[in-house]
Amino acid sequence: MAFLNDNYLKLRAGYLFPEISRRVSAFALANPEASKRLIRCGIGDVTEPLPAAAREAMHKAIDELGQRETFRGYGPEQGYEFLRHAIAENDFRFNNIEVADDEIFISDGSKCDCGNILDILGSQNRIAITDPVYPVYVDTNVMAGHTGESDDSGAYAGLHYLPCDASNGFIAEPPAEAVDVVYLCFPNNPTGAVATRAQLEAWVVYAQKNRALLLFDAAYEAYISDPAIPHSIYEIPGAREVAIEFRSFSKNGGFTGTRCAYTVVPKNLLASTSTGQQLPLHPLWSRRSSTKFNGVSYPVQRGAEALYSKAGKEQVAALVQHYMGNAAILSTAARDAGLTVFGGVNAPYIWVGTPRNKTSWETFDFFLEDLNVVITPGAGFGSNGEGYFRISAFNSRANAEEVACRIRSIATG
Amino acid sequence: MAFLNDNYLKLRAGYLFPEISRRVSAFALANPEASKRLIRCGIGDVTEPLPAAAREAMHKAIDELGQRETFRGYGPEQGYEFLRHAIAENDFRFNNIEVADDEIFISDGSKCDCGNILDILGSQNRIAITDPVYPVYVDTNVMAGHTGESDDSGAYAGLHYLPCDASNGFIAEPPAEAVDVVYLCFPNNPTGAVATRAQLEAWVVYAQKNRALLLFDAAYEAYISDPAIPHSIYEIPGAREVAIEFRSFSKNGGFTGTRCAYTVVPKNLLASTSTGQQLPLHPLWSRRSSTKFNGVSYPVQRGAEALYSKAGKEQVAALVQHYMGNAAILSTAARDAGLTVFGGVNAPYIWVGTPRNKTSWETFDFFLEDLNVVITPGAGFGSNGEGYFRISAFNSRANAEEVACRIRSIATG
Repeated sequence: MAFLNDNYLKLRAGYLFPEISRRVSAFALANPEASKRLIRCGIGDVTEPLPAAAREAMHKAIDELGQRETFRGYGPEQGYEFLRHAIAENDFRFNNIEVADDEIFISDGSKCDCGNILDILGSQNRIAITDPVYPVYVDTNVMAGHTGESDDSGAYAGLHYLPCDASNGFIAEPPAEAVDVVYLCFPNNPTGAVATRAQLEAWVVYAQKNRALLLFDAAYEAYISDPAIPHSIYEIPGAREVAIEFRSFSKNGGFTGTRCAYTVVPKNLLASTSTGQQLPLHPLWSRRSSTKFNGVSYPVQRGAEALYSKAGKEQVAALVQHYMGNAAILSTAARDAGLTVFGGVNAPYIWVGTPRNKTSWETFDFFLEDLNVVITPGAGFGSNGEGYFRISAFNSRANAEEVACRIRSIATG
Repeated sequence: MAFLNDNYLKLRAGYLFPEISRRVSAFALANPEASKRLIRCGIGDVTEPLPAAAREAMHKAIDELGQRETFRGYGPEQGYEFLRHAIAENDFRFNNIEVADDEIFISDGSKCDCGNILDILGSQNRIAITDPVYPVYVDTNVMAGHTGESDDSGAYAGLHYLPCDASNGFIAEPPAEAVDVVYLCFPNNPTGAVATRAQLEAWVVYAQKNRALLLFDAAYEAYISDPAIPHSIYEIPGAREVAIEFRSFSKNGGFTGTRCAYTVVPKNLLASTSTGQQLPLHPLWSRRSSTKFNGVSYPVQRGAEALYSKAGKEQVAALVQHYMGNAAILSTAARDAGLTVFGGVNAPYIWVGTPRNKTSWETFDFFLEDLNVVITPGAGFGSNGEGYFRISAFNSRANAEEVACRIRSIATG
């Protein structure tokens, strides 16, 4: 008799974004006219065209696949050297951060990597996550059997939650207790908070002291404009011994539909066997890639590489500037409407207190039905997200301006 | 203290194909002249250009991504409806096989899916695999902790091995004992064997009787030319209740570097919770996709869709014909050299008895050093693969003919 993985049955109703999709679809079906003016500021999905540099490189790569002489079949599962090198050089070594080419693992998404990384970790780890948090960190641990059941607030037994709220500026401090694995995401999704160097240093010191592993999600690092804010955990001395970093081309290069990301696993990062032997994680992740992955599409890797060309860098900078222009417009409008606003400065997410004592799902429904704007309810990110909602700055300028108008109407409406 | 997954330490030295790569690289370094005439018939990687229909569709899709009006960000994690529909319609319903669009899950590779499918299955399943076997089935189970250590022959404690050799035509019969999950691969990698309808019926009956799950890898189905041989497990009545099928565009459409595949999970396929409740696997796989995957690159999905156009089908047929022409040339040469030859008829793999009582790795080294041809040693696929080696028909015609010449030299050399 074949058995299924019971842990899946612990998952709470619907992953957040599919649940939002379902509500939006139901609204559109019931309100065909109003749905025509629907503007989506929910899921953090880019809207602007793929940079020309990436498109040109992808076209060229496809033409190469059309000739036997330049055809490429299976590539290295860990990614082509041309891309690993471009990344290590531009994103790290150019900034005097020590990362070797072969510490870069190319993948089809940070979401995938954040989940898959659990494959190489033991099931006995005590896992800490912030609350609110990107739901993938939680759900993949539930699926892997690292938790018990969830309670009424949505919290799972066995996870160590680190509350983030206005009182700590939405930045969790290291806990007093020892945990083994900590998920950190800066610039933060969903709150838009960024960690200072001192705050990251405290986490690295904590990890060193407890031999803990930091899983550092830097998918939004391109949105940092403050020169004092670190882009990479590896800017902190000692981080190479305690951290894995996840990065993506989704939000800087507009690759959400094109799919490319990467994970950095330093070779001197160790973890413990169940008998206490300290071994490097790098060969485990490399082996996982060889066995359970076949590399990213060749044209896509060429597209990602092109983002590091002179033209590519300019096009990425223009995209970031565009979305951060939206963030400023939306933040201002929310403040003008009398709402309490966080984030939106070094991050493309604006984290807003719900109006009129509504819950975050009530606010979601209000925005959907009255403003015809899709936002993300804070409660979808954890119980500490209740009382907040997230506005994504990923939109056309025209849409951002229109949403700003509609948000202002809350004050007078 | 962060713990690693100890199960990785049970894995035997190197995944087969990286190990081959290492030996080839070492040979090339030591023998720069001889390495110039090296021909690779090892890894089953296609060599011929990507079909024009796929390239045209990918070019068009990239242009769409360059315009805001037609830009696409995140797609459905389970795949775009246009591709799911084209697959269900052409690969199944056209042949009167019942498969719904939403039972098709688009992924970036069958290898990935064969590994990832374990995520939704319980750890208490008794797993059966054939010997020889595609190493990914074994290694992913080792990584997931479903086995003990391996013995001297390379067999892992806890796996139920089904020996395949010349005496059973390299087709395993259902075992007398009950197992819960069975990996089947037809046309077979590595042996090139194909299962008759009666043989597949016996497996479906076994699965029904034992409520077992068949994981049916049909990545090479396009190479079947005998009209009596089933292409899909779902051609067998009752298979929808007991089987998941994996298919790929790698070997028919030449997508090994482009990356697209799919998995079929019928909605009426049930598995048991640990308390004995029977639940469908479809929602679990869908949930896994939503949470741990972000869909395949949009241009790649358009490329795969184009393989189902009239031009695309003709181009795929021409590719299959090309590689099967190679298979005939190579099989004939091996027979002419006095070797014992299996496979190579409805499959792109030729499974050959080693010459002169050599072991399969000795034969690998002999082919590499003396013939400058890379083959795959049978022992890499399991202890029952000892005494055999695999020749891949994936090559240019000129290379296949040259390899045929060199193989013939064994007889006289």
